[in-house]
Amino acid sequence: MRRLSLYLRSLEELERAGVATVSSQELASRGGTTAAQVRKDLSHFGSFGKRGLGYGVPHLAGELRRILGLSRSWRVALVGAGRMGAALFEYPNFRDRGFRIVTVLDQDPEKVGKEWGGIVIRDVEGLESVLREVRAEIAILTVPGEVVQEVVDRVVDAGIRAILNFAPVRLRVPPGVVVNDVNMALELEALSFALARGARGR
Amino acid sequence: MRRLSLYLRSLEELERAGVATVSSQELASRGGTTAAQVRKDLSHFGSFGKRGLGYGVPHLAGELRRILGLSRSWRVALVGAGRMGAALFEYPNFRDRGFRIVTVLDQDPEKVGKEWGGIVIRDVEGLESVLREVRAEIAILTVPGEVVQEVVDRVVDAGIRAILNFAPVRLRVPPGVVVNDVNMALELEALSFALARGARGR
Repeated sequence: MRRLSLYLRSLEELERAGVATVSSQELASRGGTTAAQVRKDLSHFGSFGKRGLGYGVPHLAGELRRILGLSRSWRVALVGAGRMGAALFEYPNFRDRGFRIVTVLDQDPEKVGKEWGGIVIRDVEGLESVLREVRAEIAILTVPGEVVQEVVDRVVDAGIRAILNFAPVRLRVPPGVVVNDVNMALELEALSFALARGARGR
Repeated sequence: MRRLSLYLRSLEELERAGVATVSSQELASRGGTTAAQVRKDLSHFGSFGKRGLGYGVPHLAGELRRILGLSRSWRVALVGAGRMGAALFEYPNFRDRGFRIVTVLDQDPEKVGKEWGGIVIRDVEGLESVLREVRAEIAILTVPGEVVQEVVDRVVDAGIRAILNFAPVRLRVPPGVVVNDVNMALELEALSFALARGARGR
């Protein structure tokens, strides 16, 4: 699935450059994989290319957008209006991809009632009713680790089936609910691990 | 390596709770894996447990911190003082893990010279000399995708061997340089992919 996202990014670059067709070899080298892997990945979803002619760039880009659920927009609730929440609220790549933040919630009385780009920050106390009211489909959680499991339980109760979690905590969710974690400390640890190994001469 | 980080988190929770020993089974269930996997992962780095007695919690935690390069602190340069940079600068998990941001750079004349928590924001024009001066070991890049490859090339020229990249671009680096990407848009796409598939009844 990550590879599909990367292929789509390459296709969109080619689209902007006005390129009409692309070979699996070319897609592979841009995505850091092999031509055989590209053909295998795409064949799961249908037959897109013509032997010897490659893939039609705009057609394949459109198909990948549809497969990735990007041919429509998604209603996103942001829970946690701290610095990380603010950074994500402004993150241009979310909006460009059709992820629309339709509500922002926080527990801090100083923040509740303030406006971010026309959206009034709501009190997390009313989480369930707010999420239903705005028909949120995805929740982005930038709340502290100590409270994140409680927030997740409430978000799932309100009908959310897809969660992007920024707290460094492994969340428990019922079957049918997808959680992705963005754990920046873990990514930094992978770097220090590599540096420490390098420094020991392995 | 990710699993080692997760084991360490579990061990630190147990340490705080005053627990003296832990079985591979218990570590496995906390890390979402199997006891055999835990034993295999740890055996790569030495012999830590006693058959039938489990692992000593403080000892194993200390060993994992050493293996992960967390028993020392790392000097980190933050390039990009936008909203994401500001959020990361304040991110408590970085400091707790020994990642010390020792310099912040930006290209915006409005930002250069301002202070963040006692650190004066420097002009990215002098990137190479600043990184050498502060002896930075890791670079966190929160710069736009259009310029990130150029910044990476300069950071590598300045001797940096470990990079955490937030731009949605696949970076080219010479051998011996490690790059980890945090791509939040990609994580959201993985959610929309799952929701779109769910909605089609697969």
